[in-house]
Amino acid sequence: MILDIRYDFQRSERIGLFEAIWGEDKNIDQLKKVVKNILNKKGFVFITRINKKKAKILLGFYKQAKFYHEANCLIIGTNSNLVKTNKKIAIIAGGSSDLAVSLEAKIAIESYGVTCETFIDVGVAGLHRLMSQLDKINNYDILIVCAGMEGALATVIGGLLPQPIIGVPVSVGYGVSKNGKTALKSMLSSCSPGITVMNIDNGYGAAMAALRIIKSSL
Amino acid sequence: MILDIRYDFQRSERIGLFEAIWGEDKNIDQLKKVVKNILNKKGFVFITRINKKKAKILLGFYKQAKFYHEANCLIIGTNSNLVKTNKKIAIIAGGSSDLAVSLEAKIAIESYGVTCETFIDVGVAGLHRLMSQLDKINNYDILIVCAGMEGALATVIGGLLPQPIIGVPVSVGYGVSKNGKTALKSMLSSCSPGITVMNIDNGYGAAMAALRIIKSSL
Amino acid sequence: MILDIRYDFQRSERIGLFEAIWGEDKNIDQLKKVVKNILNKKGFVFITRINKKKAKILLGFYKQAKFYHEANCLIIGTNSNLVKTNKKIAIIAGGSSDLAVSLEAKIAIESYGVTCETFIDVGVAGLHRLMSQLDKINNYDILIVCAGMEGALATVIGGLLPQPIIGVPVSVGYGVSKNGKTALKSMLSSCSPGITVMNIDNGYGAAMAALRIIKSSL
Amino acid sequence: MILDIRYDFQRSERIGLFEAIWGEDKNIDQLKKVVKNILNKKGFVFITRINKKKAKILLGFYKQAKFYHEANCLIIGTNSNLVKTNKKIAIIAGGSSDLAVSLEAKIAIESYGVTCETFIDVGVAGLHRLMSQLDKINNYDILIVCAGMEGALATVIGGLLPQPIIGVPVSVGYGVSKNGKTALKSMLSSCSPGITVMNIDNGYGAAMAALRIIKSSL
Amino acid sequence: MILDIRYDFQRSERIGLFEAIWGEDKNIDQLKKVVKNILNKKGFVFITRINKKKAKILLGFYKQAKFYHEANCLIIGTNSNLVKTNKKIAIIAGGSSDLAVSLEAKIAIESYGVTCETFIDVGVAGLHRLMSQLDKINNYDILIVCAGMEGALATVIGGLLPQPIIGVPVSVGYGVSKNGKTALKSMLSSCSPGITVMNIDNGYGAAMAALRIIKSSL
Amino acid sequence: MILDIRYDFQRSERIGLFEAIWGEDKNIDQLKKVVKNILNKKGFVFITRINKKKAKILLGFYKQAKFYHEANCLIIGTNSNLVKTNKKIAIIAGGSSDLAVSLEAKIAIESYGVTCETFIDVGVAGLHRLMSQLDKINNYDILIVCAGMEGALATVIGGLLPQPIIGVPVSVGYGVSKNGKTALKSMLSSCSPGITVMNIDNGYGAAMAALRIIKSSL
Amino acid sequence: MILDIRYDFQRSERIGLFEAIWGEDKNIDQLKKVVKNILNKKGFVFITRINKKKAKILLGFYKQAKFYHEANCLIIGTNSNLVKTNKKIAIIAGGSSDLAVSLEAKIAIESYGVTCETFIDVGVAGLHRLMSQLDKINNYDILIVCAGMEGALATVIGGLLPQPIIGVPVSVGYGVSKNGKTALKSMLSSCSPGITVMNIDNGYGAAMAALRIIKSSL
Amino acid sequence: MILDIRYDFQRSERIGLFEAIWGEDKNIDQLKKVVKNILNKKGFVFITRINKKKAKILLGFYKQAKFYHEANCLIIGTNSNLVKTNKKIAIIAGGSSDLAVSLEAKIAIESYGVTCETFIDVGVAGLHRLMSQLDKINNYDILIVCAGMEGALATVIGGLLPQPIIGVPVSVGYGVSKNGKTALKSMLSSCSPGITVMNIDNGYGAAMAALRIIKSSL
Repeated sequence: MILDIRYDFQRSERIGLFEAIWGEDKNIDQLKKVVKNILNKKGFVFITRINKKKAKILLGFYKQAKFYHEANCLIIGTNSNLVKTNKKIAIIAGGSSDLAVSLEAKIAIESYGVTCETFIDVGVAGLHRLMSQLDKINNYDILIVCAGMEGALATVIGGLLPQPIIGVPVSVGYGVSKNGKTALKSMLSSCSPGITVMNIDNGYGAAMAALRIIKSSL
Repeated sequence: MILDIRYDFQRSERIGLFEAIWGEDKNIDQLKKVVKNILNKKGFVFITRINKKKAKILLGFYKQAKFYHEANCLIIGTNSNLVKTNKKIAIIAGGSSDLAVSLEAKIAIESYGVTCETFIDVGVAGLHRLMSQLDKINNYDILIVCAGMEGALATVIGGLLPQPIIGVPVSVGYGVSKNGKTALKSMLSSCSPGITVMNIDNGYGAAMAALRIIKSSL
Repeated sequence: MILDIRYDFQRSERIGLFEAIWGEDKNIDQLKKVVKNILNKKGFVFITRINKKKAKILLGFYKQAKFYHEANCLIIGTNSNLVKTNKKIAIIAGGSSDLAVSLEAKIAIESYGVTCETFIDVGVAGLHRLMSQLDKINNYDILIVCAGMEGALATVIGGLLPQPIIGVPVSVGYGVSKNGKTALKSMLSSCSPGITVMNIDNGYGAAMAALRIIKSSL
Repeated sequence: MILDIRYDFQRSERIGLFEAIWGEDKNIDQLKKVVKNILNKKGFVFITRINKKKAKILLGFYKQAKFYHEANCLIIGTNSNLVKTNKKIAIIAGGSSDLAVSLEAKIAIESYGVTCETFIDVGVAGLHRLMSQLDKINNYDILIVCAGMEGALATVIGGLLPQPIIGVPVSVGYGVSKNGKTALKSMLSSCSPGITVMNIDNGYGAAMAALRIIKSSL
Repeated sequence: MILDIRYDFQRSERIGLFEAIWGEDKNIDQLKKVVKNILNKKGFVFITRINKKKAKILLGFYKQAKFYHEANCLIIGTNSNLVKTNKKIAIIAGGSSDLAVSLEAKIAIESYGVTCETFIDVGVAGLHRLMSQLDKINNYDILIVCAGMEGALATVIGGLLPQPIIGVPVSVGYGVSKNGKTALKSMLSSCSPGITVMNIDNGYGAAMAALRIIKSSL
Repeated sequence: MILDIRYDFQRSERIGLFEAIWGEDKNIDQLKKVVKNILNKKGFVFITRINKKKAKILLGFYKQAKFYHEANCLIIGTNSNLVKTNKKIAIIAGGSSDLAVSLEAKIAIESYGVTCETFIDVGVAGLHRLMSQLDKINNYDILIVCAGMEGALATVIGGLLPQPIIGVPVSVGYGVSKNGKTALKSMLSSCSPGITVMNIDNGYGAAMAALRIIKSSL
Repeated sequence: MILDIRYDFQRSERIGLFEAIWGEDKNIDQLKKVVKNILNKKGFVFITRINKKKAKILLGFYKQAKFYHEANCLIIGTNSNLVKTNKKIAIIAGGSSDLAVSLEAKIAIESYGVTCETFIDVGVAGLHRLMSQLDKINNYDILIVCAGMEGALATVIGGLLPQPIIGVPVSVGYGVSKNGKTALKSMLSSCSPGITVMNIDNGYGAAMAALRIIKSSL
Repeated sequence: MILDIRYDFQRSERIGLFEAIWGEDKNIDQLKKVVKNILNKKGFVFITRINKKKAKILLGFYKQAKFYHEANCLIIGTNSNLVKTNKKIAIIAGGSSDLAVSLEAKIAIESYGVTCETFIDVGVAGLHRLMSQLDKINNYDILIVCAGMEGALATVIGGLLPQPIIGVPVSVGYGVSKNGKTALKSMLSSCSPGITVMNIDNGYGAAMAALRIIKSSL
C-alpha cells in the first residue's frame, strides 16, 4: 500500500516561508522519504520535534545534516530564501525550562539569516532580572516572549516596551499550569495592549510570525 | 411546610469568626427570618451578595442596617468579636473593575475593627503605577491582591514583597478570561513562592483568611 | 467611600499606544469620572464595549463625542499620537455576524490615522468569494482576520498570502462553537505558518498589535 | 473465573454490517478466544487498534490472517457480506500524519468489496494541492475527510463539492490541537452545510457510515 | 459606515443547497437588507433561529412569508431547486422537548420537496414506545435522530436498523446534560457502527446532510 | 403541524414508578395537553421544574392541583401506586440554599406514601450541627444527602452511618463551585465507601432511587 | 523519617464495611507495612488496583493471599463480617472490555458472602443480547451496570427493570469517550428514573453501595 | 549554543525566601550547572521534584547533599536564612498517599529551622481519627492540610479550628478525582471561612506561605 506525500513546494513562492516537517508523528521511513523528496527539489529541509533516535538515523544518511538536540530540530542543506534585513529579533524566556521552545524559534529565525538573541531566566517573580536587561532588549525590533506557569512575562513586557510582541506559552508546570494552558489563556487575556499569541510550545510558528513582520517592512 | 434554618452560632466561639449570610440564593422571606433569628442571639449580621432590592426591604425593617451597594454587602448591628491588633491589611487591585470584590474584603475586615487600606488600579500593564506605591504598600502586614484578566499582579507583588499574600481572582474579563478562571489558575501557578489563593470573587473569604493570620500572631 | 482610579497616562509615552477604557464593567458614574480625568490631561478618550444607554449619557455631556453603535465604541476628542505611515491594514471577516469585532478594530486603527479597509463575508464555505478578493487584499500590509464558527478563514488566508496575520476569533455560533472557543483553538492550531492570535472578540487588541507592527517598521 | 463473551452474530443480519473487534483493551487471551469463536460461526474477523505484538501472535495461529500495520488492523478470512455497487468512496486527508486513520477506513471499506481511493496531503494550508485534485475527487460518490490540527479541510471541501461528507477528526497536533478535540469541534461547527462527523480517529466508523449510505441507495 | 454583505449565490450551483440565513446574530436592519438582496436574485429565503419579534416585522413586509414559530424558522418564496426522489426521511426524537430541532430539520427537508415524517417521544427509557414504531420507521430511507439528555436513542436505533443515521444532539437537560454536550459525546461514542453526528441543535444541518445523501443516490 | 406526545403509560407497570413531567422546557400548551392526556388514563400527574406562571394557569384549570412553589413542583390527582412500607427516608442538606432540591425529593417520596423527614443546615463547616442530629438521622433507613459548594457532607455522613446513601449535588455556589460541578465530582470522589450519586439538582431522581431500594426490600 | 499510617479499624463497627487498601499509589514498603498492621488486628485485607509486580511480592509473604489478576485485586485472610442474606446481586456489563471493573465489584461482594452473578457483553448496540437475558437478570435484587463508551446500557435497563440500579462508568473508549467521562455523564443524565452512579471504574464502591442496600433490608 | 541561567540571588534579600530549583524539567547538565553556580554564591541549594536517577548523580558530586526520596527533594548545604520563632506548623494529610507532598512541605519548613509536625491518615471518611488528634493539632500555629480525592478535610478542619489554614490539593485519585482538580476546586469552594489554597501538589509553596505568615508575626 503506497501513499504519496505531497510536499507544499510552492509555499515559499506564495508566502516566502518554506514548510517545516513535523517529526513527531512520522516514522523513520516516512521521514527518509519526505527528506529525499524535498532535497531533490529544494536543497533545504527543516524538521521540528524530531527525537534523538530518528535524528541519528538521518545524520547517518546526510553528512551535512545538523541536529540541535536541545531544540529537537534537524536541518539539512542551506536555505536559499534568506531574508535581507538589519532588523533583529529578541527571544525572552521566563525560565530555563522554556529553553527548547526558545531554541526552536531561534534556529528557525537564524536559518533565514536574521539576527536573533535570547534572554533567558528573566521571569517576573524576580522583576529586577528583567529590569536590568530592559534597555538591551529595547534595541531589538520584534520580541518573542516564551513563558510557562502563569505566563505573566508577556504582560509585563507588553506594558513596558513598544515593539510587536509574540507570546509563546510553554508547557512547563504542574497542577493547573501543566501542559501550558494557563500560560496560553493568561497571555490571551493580557491587559497590555496588542500582544499576539501562538499555540503552546510553537516556537517555530513564532519565528514564522516574526519573519512575516520583517518581510512586511522591507 | 416549615423548615428551620440552623445558624452556626457556636462558630465564633470555635474559630472566632462569625458566619456570614450568603444573600444571593436566599429569597427575602428566608433573609428576614434568618436575620431576625441571629439578631436575637448575637446582635450582628453580615450579609454578602445581596442586591439592592432585597437590601432596601431589610433597610426598611432595621434602621441601624447599613448597605454598601458597591460591595453588595449589608450589615446590621455591631460585631462584639473585635480583634485588637496594630497589624494592618492592604488590599491591592489591578483595575477599577475589581472594586466590588475589594470592597467586600475591606468591609469585612473593618467590621472586626482591623485597619485596612485599598490600592486600586495598580495593574502590571502599567508597572510604574505599582512601583510608585510599593513602599507605601510595604508598610502593611498582610496583602490581599484582587485581579481579573490574567491575574499577573499577584506574581509581581509576590516577587517584590515578603508579606503573606492572599490572591483573589476576580470574574472580570471576556473570552478566555471571562468568569475569572484564567486569573484563578494564573495565581495558583504563580512562580513567586508562597502565594495563597481564594475562590473567584471571594473577597469575604480573603478577609477571613487575613483575620486568621492576624489572630494567630496575637 | 471614595476610590481613586489611576489612569495609565504614561503608557503612550512608553509604548506609543493609549489605554482604552473598558466600558462593560464600569457604571456610568465611574465612566464619567474617568472620562473627565483623562480629557483634562490628554484630550482623547477611547471607550470599548459601551452600550447605548451609557453612551447616550456621555453624548449628552460631551458634544464632540462620537458613538459607533455597531462597534459599541465611543470616542471623545482627537488622538494627538497619530502614526504617520503609508502602510495599510485589511480586516477580513468570515460572516456579517463578525461585524462588531471588525468595526472595533477598524475604528481603533483609524483613530491613529492609519488607512484600513474591511472585507466582510468572505468565509471559506464559499471559497470563490474570498478568491475573487484575494488580489485586492494582497495590496494591504497587515491582515486582521475575524472569524467565528470553526475559524478556518485564518488558515486559508495564511496559506495564500505572505503578510503578518492577526487572527481574532469571534464569539458567534452555537453548540460547540458557542462563545468563540472553537474558533480560538482552530486559529491557534492553524497549519499555515506564523499566524498570531488574539483573545476572543478582541478587535481593539488586534488593532494595537497591527499598530505595533507598523511602528516597528518606521 | 470464566466469563463468556457474547459476540453480536445477528448484527450482520439486522444491519448488514459485521461487528469489528476492538483490539486495544483486550489481552491476547481474550483476542484468541473471541477470534476462534467468531471464525467458527462466520469465517471472517476484523480487528481494529491491534498492536504489532498481539498481531504477530495471531498471525502465528492463522495463516490466512493479514496484518495492516500502518492501520493497526488485522483481518482473518473473507467477508461473505459483500456490497455490490458501482459507487466509489474517496478518503481525503490533510496531512500524512492522518495516515493510520485513513487506512483503517480504506481497509474496512474494501473488505466489503467497495472501491475506495485515498487523497493524502491535500491540506488547506496549501490550497493549490487540494484544487489540483478537485475534479478527480468529484468523481467519487461519498467523501470521507480525515484531518487533525484545526480540521478546516472538511469545511473547504464541503463548500466546493455536493457529495455526502463524513468528517473524521484525527488526534495529531500539540497544545490546543492535541488529541483531536479542536479538529472535532471545528468540523462540528463547520459553516459548510450538511457535514457529518465521527468520533476522533474513528476511521472504521466512517467506513460503516459510508456503507450505510451506499446500501440505502441500492 | 456601510458594509456590504456578500450572499453566496453560487452555492446552489456548486453543491445544490442554498445558504440559509442565521437569524440569531443579525439585527432587523441586517435581516431586511439581506432578504431583499436575495429575493431579487433567487426568489427564495430560508431563515433559521429567528425570534417572534423579528419574524413579525418581516411578515409585515412580505405577505408570502411563512413563520414556523415552534421551529423558529421563516421562509419567503419558493425553492426552485427541488429534489425529485421517492426516498423518504424519518426524524425520530427522544422527547417532546426536542421538538424545535426536529421541526427545523423537517421544514428544511420539505422545502426541497422531499417527504419527511416525525416520530416524537420514542425515548429509550420506555423502550416499548420505540419498538412499537420500529417497523414503520424501517420504511424510511434515512434516519435523523434528535435526542438530548444522554442521547442513547441514536445507539439503540443504530443497532437495530441499517439506514444511514444522522444524530442531532439537543440542548435540553440540566446539570451534566445541560447544553447538549453529553448527548453530543454520547452519540459520537456510540458503540453502534456508522452513526454520524451534527453540532448540537443543528436540525438544519442534519437536513442538508440527508439531502446530500439523497442527491448522491439519484 | 400537530405532533403527538407519547406518555410512557406502561412505565408504572414495568418498574412501579410513574413518569414525571419535566416542566421547564415545555410551554403551557404542551403542558395542558399532556396533563389532560395523562389524567384521562391515570388520574395522577407530577410536574417538576415548573415556574409560578405556568403553575398558576394549571391551578386555574384543575382545582385539585397543588403547587409547591419552593420546590417548583405541581401535583394533580392522587397516586394509586402507593408503596406500603415502614421504612423511612431522611433528606439531609448542607445549607438552606439546598432547599428546593431537598423539597423536590421530599414531595416525590411522600406522593408514594412513604415517610420522609428533612434535616436542613447541617453542613460540615459547623460539624456540631450534624453531630447533634446524628442519632436521630440514624433512625432512618435510607439517606439522601443534598449539598452544593464542595459537597463534603456526603463523605462525612458516609463515614459515620451504615445506610444506603444517595448524594445529590446542588447548583449553589459561585466561582469554581458555580453550577454544582464541584459538588458532583466531590461526591463521586468520596473516600467514604459506597456513596451513590445523582445528577446535579436531581432531587426527583434521588427520590426514585430511594423508592427502588425500598421496593427491593419488600 | 517515620510516618505512621492510621488504618480505620473502627469503620467496620460503624458502618459494617471494612476499609479497602488502594494499591496504586502505595509502594511495596507501604503495602507490606499496612498489611501486617491490619492482619494483626483484623485478619482480613482487601487491596484494589494492585499490579502483578507488587502482588507477587505479597504472595511470597502470605501463603493464604489470593491475587485476582484480571481484577487487580488481592485478598489476604477471611472476612469475619459476612452478610447473611438471600438477596442476590447481578453485575451487567456492556462489553468484555468492562471486565476488570465488573470483577472488582464481584470479588468485593463475594468476600462478604453475598451471591453475585455477572452478565457480560450485553451492550445496547445489539439489543437482542440484553433482551434474551432480561428475565434471568430480573431474578436478582440489585443491579450493578458497568459500561464505557456512551454508557447507554444503564438507561435501557433502568427503563425495563424495577430494581435498585448502580451505574459504574468504565474508562474504555477513545476520542470523546476516552477515560470514561462520557459514560459518567451519560449515566448521570439518564432519562430512566432513579439510576444512581459511582465514580469511573469504581467497581469496589458499587459493591459497597449494593451491600449498604442489602444491609438496610435485613 | 550556550545559554546562561540567571538564578534569582536577590530574592532572599527582598522577600526572605530563597528560590528553589524545579528539578523535573531540567536535565542533569542544567542541574549541575545551576547547583555549582548557586553554591558558589550562597552555600545552599534546595531542589524539588528530582528523581532518584538525577539525585544519585548529584549525591556523587556533593558529599554534603541529602536526598529525601519519598519527597523527591535534594538539599545541599545549610540555609543561612533561618527564621527564629517559637511558632509551630502542623501538616495534616487525609491519607498515606498524600505523603510525598506532605514531606516536601515539611522538609522545606524545617530547612528554615522552624518546627513542624505531620498528622497523616486523618481523613474525614473516618472522622474519629481526626477527632482524636484535634487537641494536639490545636497546639500548632499554622495548619497545612494536604488532601486528594474530594479534599473535604480542609473544610472540616476549617470549621473546627481558628488557625490560618493552607490547603494543598493532592493529585491522588482516579476518574473524576484524578490529577487533583476535584480536591482543588473542593478546597476553593469550602464553606468554612478563610481557607487559602495552593496549586495541586505544591507542598513547597505551602511551606513558603506558612513562612511568610510566621515572618509577618515576628
